[in-house]
Amino acid sequence: MDNRQILIDSLPQGELRESNYTLATTKAPQPENGQVLCRTLAIAIEAGSRAGLQGSASYAGAPKSGIVMNGHAAARVVASYDPAYKEGDLVTCPAGWQDYSVHEARALTRIEGSGDPARYLSALGNSGLTAYFGLFNVGQPQAGETLLVSAAAGAVGHFVGQMGRIAGMKTVGVAGSDEKCARLVSELKFNGAINYKDGGFRANLKEVTPDGVDLYFDNTGGDVLGSALFRMNENGRIVCCGVVSQYDTSNPAPGPKGVPGLLVNKRLRMQGFLVFDHIKQYSQARSEIAGWLDSGELIAWQDEFDGLESAPRALVDLLAGGNTGKRIVRVAE
Amino acid sequence: MDNRQILIDSLPQGELRESNYTLATTKAPQPENGQVLCRTLAIAIEAGSRAGLQGSASYAGAPKSGIVMNGHAAARVVASYDPAYKEGDLVTCPAGWQDYSVHEARALTRIEGSGDPARYLSALGNSGLTAYFGLFNVGQPQAGETLLVSAAAGAVGHFVGQMGRIAGMKTVGVAGSDEKCARLVSELKFNGAINYKDGGFRANLKEVTPDGVDLYFDNTGGDVLGSALFRMNENGRIVCCGVVSQYDTSNPAPGPKGVPGLLVNKRLRMQGFLVFDHIKQYSQARSEIAGWLDSGELIAWQDEFDGLESAPRALVDLLAGGNTGKRIVRVAE
Repeated sequence: MDNRQILIDSLPQGELRESNYTLATTKAPQPENGQVLCRTLAIAIEAGSRAGLQGSASYAGAPKSGIVMNGHAAARVVASYDPAYKEGDLVTCPAGWQDYSVHEARALTRIEGSGDPARYLSALGNSGLTAYFGLFNVGQPQAGETLLVSAAAGAVGHFVGQMGRIAGMKTVGVAGSDEKCARLVSELKFNGAINYKDGGFRANLKEVTPDGVDLYFDNTGGDVLGSALFRMNENGRIVCCGVVSQYDTSNPAPGPKGVPGLLVNKRLRMQGFLVFDHIKQYSQARSEIAGWLDSGELIAWQDEFDGLESAPRALVDLLAGGNTGKRIVRVAE
Repeated sequence: MDNRQILIDSLPQGELRESNYTLATTKAPQPENGQVLCRTLAIAIEAGSRAGLQGSASYAGAPKSGIVMNGHAAARVVASYDPAYKEGDLVTCPAGWQDYSVHEARALTRIEGSGDPARYLSALGNSGLTAYFGLFNVGQPQAGETLLVSAAAGAVGHFVGQMGRIAGMKTVGVAGSDEKCARLVSELKFNGAINYKDGGFRANLKEVTPDGVDLYFDNTGGDVLGSALFRMNENGRIVCCGVVSQYDTSNPAPGPKGVPGLLVNKRLRMQGFLVFDHIKQYSQARSEIAGWLDSGELIAWQDEFDGLESAPRALVDLLAGGNTGKRIVRVAE
């Protein structure tokens, strides 16, 4: 059984390019006792995986070339040598960008219920869970407060704003195009949305947050974070979720000027988190999110590419801000 | 009755100089009903008061020239038109840099017990209370953890390190001279202390914190904060207390590169605070601190100048790192 794989051919110097990847074909791996062979159905394309290609320290581990690009996938069990799974079961797994992969059974997450398995890469997967735990566990929202979200049309951001609305907050999104901003308001019911590429960004931000910002969910770092610091109210919270502005570079920019001065004067709390730290609450969170999806309170945007070979293009484009919602590459039916 | 006053003559361009101040003599003010006339005995010299001379926003309020320089003082009541105070009572008050000042009675804090009233400007005043609330309320120390403190020989820092030891932590200080570092270890029982002016600072910091840093009490911002971020352990806390590195300039430096990237990867919490937010606990904190002073567990360093006219020199020198412990200007017996 042939296994197509997308390998990291070279580490990027500066921006990531499709030419940093190469397509290879090998034989599908053979599972051993306690292991499961999985057929990749859909791959989640995530900005964070760019960090694994960085020379500096990162939670994705040390960079290497000549290995399969990492990525989370929805998959179908093709052969199981563990009693917990049988052929045909649907799971998520750290498959990487390839057709087939072998895993210890304990590394798999079972996909519950019917419907598109790719929702376990989006609203019921890391993106939805990251939004949920960052907003509720770290941000501690209060009804009536103003929530600001950066990369608000992104995989995590579009959920954060909607969950903030569900929590009774006024919600304002920052995105990279006028079209995304319009859709955030019309389709996802954000109270406001502004384009950070607009020259009048700071003034626009002030206008759209007349009561200041109580909770800022930061997906970007960089200039948007710097501007948000100046709009924060006293005792505000900044949830640090990711640093999109810094992923696609070998030379991170300096931090914002307001750190630590504005943190002191405004008594701000700025806190980073990773979704994995909240694993004990995944099941409870998934069932709450599933309820919101069923009732239509929460809308999941999926932004799809077709075919394994499109994955490098899908990531390069995502890093340039091309996605609206969760980017998925469909690999097989 | 003559009242000598030190006025802000001009706002500093760049570093503060003694020539930004001028000495004037007027008549002592006359209290009205509900007010109290106070004779200044000692003035607390504080880096934060430099921020009031900045063009940018600051909790010390908008900058002005031609007014009395602000400052907290220990004082003796000379005349009282309020039943709560009588002549001879000792108080602290926002006197400013002058011999006499008038206050609403509710703006005064009564000095309890006997002994040097200046201790209410130091261990039992804002410096000691800032150390106490920043460490215990914001930092939430755990026995066995490593505490790093910047400006560790400063008014707040020298208390933070000692309180950390009392809480069972390993304590490491950062200071601006080898002599200060030696005294932190020999006199105040810090486990280690390093000089940030030493060229090998990052390497020295690593050596003196072999288990990493769990709690960093930041009094400086700037490069020391940047270096500390790289030594933080997962789930570490950074207490943002002040920004000494940025007070004496009109052009604040960019923030550290690790913000927000390292906050995410290490799940750090970075939190600013002001001592005033904890006013309901002042009395309980003062009695605990007084107990530590009495038992000798806590040592208060006082660094004194003599005479009202020395106040500008005392502040300029403090901003250049000249103080060891709390700087006090003695004005009268």
